Amino acid sequence: MKNVTIKEAAQLLLSHDNILILMHKSPDGDAIGSAYGLCGALRDLGKKAQPVCSDPIPEKFSYITDRLPYQEFEPEYIVSVDLADTQLFGEKLEPYKDRVGLCIDHHGSNTRFAEYGIIEASASSCAQVIVPIIKETGAEIRGVIADALFTGITTDTGCFKFSSVSSETHRIAACLIDCGAQSAMINRLMFDTKTRQQLALEKQSLESLRYFENGTVAMITVTAAMMKETGAQECDLDGIASLPRQIEGVKIGITVKEKEPGHFRMSVRTTDEVDASAICALLGGGGHHAAAGCSFTGTKEEAEAKILEAALKIYSESGT
Amino acid sequence: MKNVTIKEAAQLLLSHDNILILMHKSPDGDAIGSAYGLCGALRDLGKKAQPVCSDPIPEKFSYITDRLPYQEFEPEYIVSVDLADTQLFGEKLEPYKDRVGLCIDHHGSNTRFAEYGIIEASASSCAQVIVPIIKETGAEIRGVIADALFTGITTDTGCFKFSSVSSETHRIAACLIDCGAQSAMINRLMFDTKTRQQLALEKQSLESLRYFENGTVAMITVTAAMMKETGAQECDLDGIASLPRQIEGVKIGITVKEKEPGHFRMSVRTTDEVDASAICALLGGGGHHAAAGCSFTGTKEEAEAKILEAALKIYSESGT
Repeated sequence: MKNVTIKEAAQLLLSHDNILILMHKSPDGDAIGSAYGLCGALRDLGKKAQPVCSDPIPEKFSYITDRLPYQEFEPEYIVSVDLADTQLFGEKLEPYKDRVGLCIDHHGSNTRFAEYGIIEASASSCAQVIVPIIKETGAEIRGVIADALFTGITTDTGCFKFSSVSSETHRIAACLIDCGAQSAMINRLMFDTKTRQQLALEKQSLESLRYFENGTVAMITVTAAMMKETGAQECDLDGIASLPRQIEGVKIGITVKEKEPGHFRMSVRTTDEVDASAICALLGGGGHHAAAGCSFTGTKEEAEAKILEAALKIYSESGT
Repeated sequence: MKNVTIKEAAQLLLSHDNILILMHKSPDGDAIGSAYGLCGALRDLGKKAQPVCSDPIPEKFSYITDRLPYQEFEPEYIVSVDLADTQLFGEKLEPYKDRVGLCIDHHGSNTRFAEYGIIEASASSCAQVIVPIIKETGAEIRGVIADALFTGITTDTGCFKFSSVSSETHRIAACLIDCGAQSAMINRLMFDTKTRQQLALEKQSLESLRYFENGTVAMITVTAAMMKETGAQECDLDGIASLPRQIEGVKIGITVKEKEPGHFRMSVRTTDEVDASAICALLGGGGHHAAAGCSFTGTKEEAEAKILEAALKIYSESGT
C-alpha cells in the first residue's frame, strides 16, 4: 500500500465516481459516522456514493442513515474507512477484499490491504482523519455530513474523555459544531440513553460484584441466565465491562461473561500501573495496556478462578 | 453593579493585590477550578491570592489544591467566581457580602451584588469566562492553572455533553490542552470513578424503580435507611438523579430522596417535550426546563404520589 497525503487522498476521491464506502462488521459510531460523512460529501460533489457493511446499522443511528437514502450503482471505486484488517470485512464485503483503492484509517495496526492509504494513528477517530480530506475536496461540511463526522469523533473518544483526545480533536469538534453538527442531541443519544434491559442487567450483575486484594481487584460475572432473564442483548453489555474498574481504589476490573453455557469471555480493564494485556495473555488472549480480553471453556467457577489467578500474578509482579 | 469588559476586568485585577477569591458553598468543579485557576494566574503575576469557601474542598480536587498552598494575608480586594447570589456565600464568607469588588460568573440569574461584574450567561462554565480575562492580564496559562480551568469546563458540561457546550467551549478546551492541561487524567478522575457506597446505593435504589404511563415516566426513591445502610453521602447521589430519565423511552425521570425522616427532596429531569420546572412549581419548587426540584413534608407514599400527580398533569397538558 502506498501512503498518500490529505491532498492526494482528496484528489483520488475527486477523480472517481460511483464510490462504494466499506466499513467493518459490527459497525460502531466511528465506522458509521466516517462512512456516511464521506458519502454525504461525495454526493454533494455530484457523485454517486454508498456506504456498505456486512452487518445492519443499529437503529439509533437513523438520524444519520435516514438522511442519505440508499443509492444503487455499479461500483467503480472502493474506499474503506475505519477498517484495519480484511478480517473485519465480513461476508457481504468479501468480494471487495482485493479491490480497495483508498483506505482511510486511524489504527496503527492497519494491515495495509489497499492500493493507497492514509493512516493517522495519532488521530482520536477515523472521522478526525476524514474532516481535512473532505475540506480539501472542496465539499462543504454541513447538515448530515457534520452530524455524521461529529458522531464518529464523540463515540470513539467516549465523549471527549479518552486519552486519545488532543487539542486537535477539540478544534475539529468546534469546527463541526460551527458547520451545524447537533452536538448536544448526538451526545444525549449516544451516551445518555440506557435500555430497560441494560439497566436490569446492570442491577443483576452488580449482585455478583466481589472485591479481592483489599479492594484493588473487582470482578463481575454475567451469566447466560441473566442475559435471558433480563432480555439483554450483546450491545447492552457495553457499559458493564468498564464498571468494575470505575470503582474507587480498583486497579484491575474483571468482567466474566458467559457467551453460551460453558463458554466464557473475560474483559480486563486496568489503571496505568497494571498491564491488562499481560493478564489476558496468560489465558491466550490479548489487547491493550488498559483494556484486554480472553476466552475460557469450562465451568463458571473455573473461569472466575483462572482469570483471578492471572490478574493476581501480574498484579504482584507489577510491584504496586 | 456595573458591567465591565474582559479588558476592564483584567485591569481591575492588575491594579489590586492581596486578592481573596470567593466561591459558593458546596463547591463544585467549576467553582473550584475557576477560583484556583484565577488564583494561580494572580500569583504568577506576583500577587498574593487565596480562594476561600464556606465548605471544605472535596479531596478529589487535591491535584489542584495541593499545588497552590494556602496564603495568609489581610484581604485588600474581593473577587467572586461562579457565585450567583449572596445566599450561596455560606457562614464563612458572610463578612464579605457587601465587599465584593469584582464578580465573574456565567449565571444569567446573578443577583448583581458586586461593585463590578462580568456575567456571560451563554458561557458553559465560569472557567470559560475566566480564560480570556487571564490572557488579558498577560499571565501565562500553564501547569495547575490549565488543569484548574479545564476542570471547571469539563465538570460544568458533563464532559462536553450538555447543550451549553458551544464551538467556543471546545476551542478553549483545545487551548487549555495546548497549555498543558492533563485532560485525560482529569476526565477520568471526575467522570470515571465511583465510590463503593455510590455503587451500593445505585443498586439499592434501582430496586425501587417503577414505570408509569407506558414507560414514559420513571421514578426512583432513595430512603434515609438506604443512605445509612450503604454508608453513602450526599455527593454519592449525583448520578442517581439523572438515572431514571436516561432510560430509553422515558420523558420524565423522577428521583424522590428522603433527606431526613418525613422530609423529601424531589428531582425531576425531562426531555425537551416536558417542562420540569412547571412540574416542580406545582409543589412550590422550580429550576430549569430540563432539570428542576422541589421539597415535600409527609410520608414517603405521599411524596411519591404528589410528585407523580404533578408530573402526569404537566405531561398531559404538554400534549405529547
